[in-house]
Amino acid sequence: MRRFYAPEVKPGPHSLGADEARHLGQVLRARPGDAVELADGQGAVFPAEVVSVGKREAVLQVGIPACFPIPDPQLTLWVAPTKHTDRFEWFLEKACECGVSRIQPIWTGRSERKVEKHERWHRTLVEAMKQSQRAWLPELLPATPLKEALETVKGAVDGPWLGLAHCPVPEHPEWQRQSITEAMPAGSDAVLAIGPEGDFTPDEIEAFGAAGFTPVTMGTHRLRTETAALYAVQAFHLINALK
Amino acid sequence: MRRFYAPEVKPGPHSLGADEARHLGQVLRARPGDAVELADGQGAVFPAEVVSVGKREAVLQVGIPACFPIPDPQLTLWVAPTKHTDRFEWFLEKACECGVSRIQPIWTGRSERKVEKHERWHRTLVEAMKQSQRAWLPELLPATPLKEALETVKGAVDGPWLGLAHCPVPEHPEWQRQSITEAMPAGSDAVLAIGPEGDFTPDEIEAFGAAGFTPVTMGTHRLRTETAALYAVQAFHLINALK
Repeated sequence: MRRFYAPEVKPGPHSLGADEARHLGQVLRARPGDAVELADGQGAVFPAEVVSVGKREAVLQVGIPACFPIPDPQLTLWVAPTKHTDRFEWFLEKACECGVSRIQPIWTGRSERKVEKHERWHRTLVEAMKQSQRAWLPELLPATPLKEALETVKGAVDGPWLGLAHCPVPEHPEWQRQSITEAMPAGSDAVLAIGPEGDFTPDEIEAFGAAGFTPVTMGTHRLRTETAALYAVQAFHLINALK
Repeated sequence: MRRFYAPEVKPGPHSLGADEARHLGQVLRARPGDAVELADGQGAVFPAEVVSVGKREAVLQVGIPACFPIPDPQLTLWVAPTKHTDRFEWFLEKACECGVSRIQPIWTGRSERKVEKHERWHRTLVEAMKQSQRAWLPELLPATPLKEALETVKGAVDGPWLGLAHCPVPEHPEWQRQSITEAMPAGSDAVLAIGPEGDFTPDEIEAFGAAGFTPVTMGTHRLRTETAALYAVQAFHLINALK
């Protein structure tokens, strides 16, 4: 069943814009009477029937949706966009397929290239949501400096578990990290911050500590930023399935 | 520390070929006296000192290696190369970073494009091994038709656990799959076959069953082939850490 993203859809007649109409008519070769699905990215998936397909507009008759509960618990990842944007977009696609709930792009002291492509990243997530047949679109927050992101979690009561994945710090061989499989609790929302290319600076790691983050490691091997971030999504799900 | 791949290296003087010499001299701007590391991909990592750097050759003085034990248990993945080769190469990079031991590319009934790029795939694995500072290079087997791959595991005594990840089969709603987190044992070598784009055919799934494979699922959402394959690598490691 072909699925479309329609954030504002309701039961009844629904018009698709030019881009989706072209996709429906020319790529999928849909005809009046064909069945499709519309997902609003907020848990509702609507059955729909094609009424008409033109070059600039397509009209659908939309039925009563199936509603899927919001994923629980939820994982929020803080990740610095990588220097090569394709690596970050790859990560967004995979993280959505694997069930991340929220992504907070962060700018860090060692972020080499501070280019935010919010619309493009959003489209990547939408495509991955459709492809993986998820009912919930991960929330993509505006990119923000790390310092401001830390302000949002400071002093939260009954907040999510806070974790920080960083590499060994040569200047501080005494700094300890726990294995993520030991440190991350099951059944709890979590925020996990992933070291950027070049890692967090010692000052940043200390700021995380002051904000209540637990330092964790994902093993003895050096993972690329986007690999570590995806590993975190899988670890979150498997810890919740196995612990 | 910069690491090079040198499968035949031994302690003593060692000559790098033109490609690696150019990389050492022009990209890394190494000079006589600089320290580097050589990994043979078979568990040995050798310290080395640059003796001379020319355009066509570089000479190193190689010391006594540190030896790392072979990863245990080991995961072998059977994966059909994807239609778009960049998705498969992305998978190879990440699977190496995350610790896969062996990759068996397979041709299936629904493989759309049977193009084997063995040398290129090998180079992708070498780069990922260097980048993630692993001492063991994953073994890349020659691509083989599924039927022949199945012959290699039939009737093995005390062999690895055999798993098969496929999607629901519309023609056989009665076919059951176990969750991979329940089905995959800890502490045992495993072979896991990942459904290609378009999935295995019902006949192929029956052939897997006859060969002793346990059908598994990675959750209710539809994962791309390369996402499912990487999920399998991460699940293998997390199951061995958590179970």
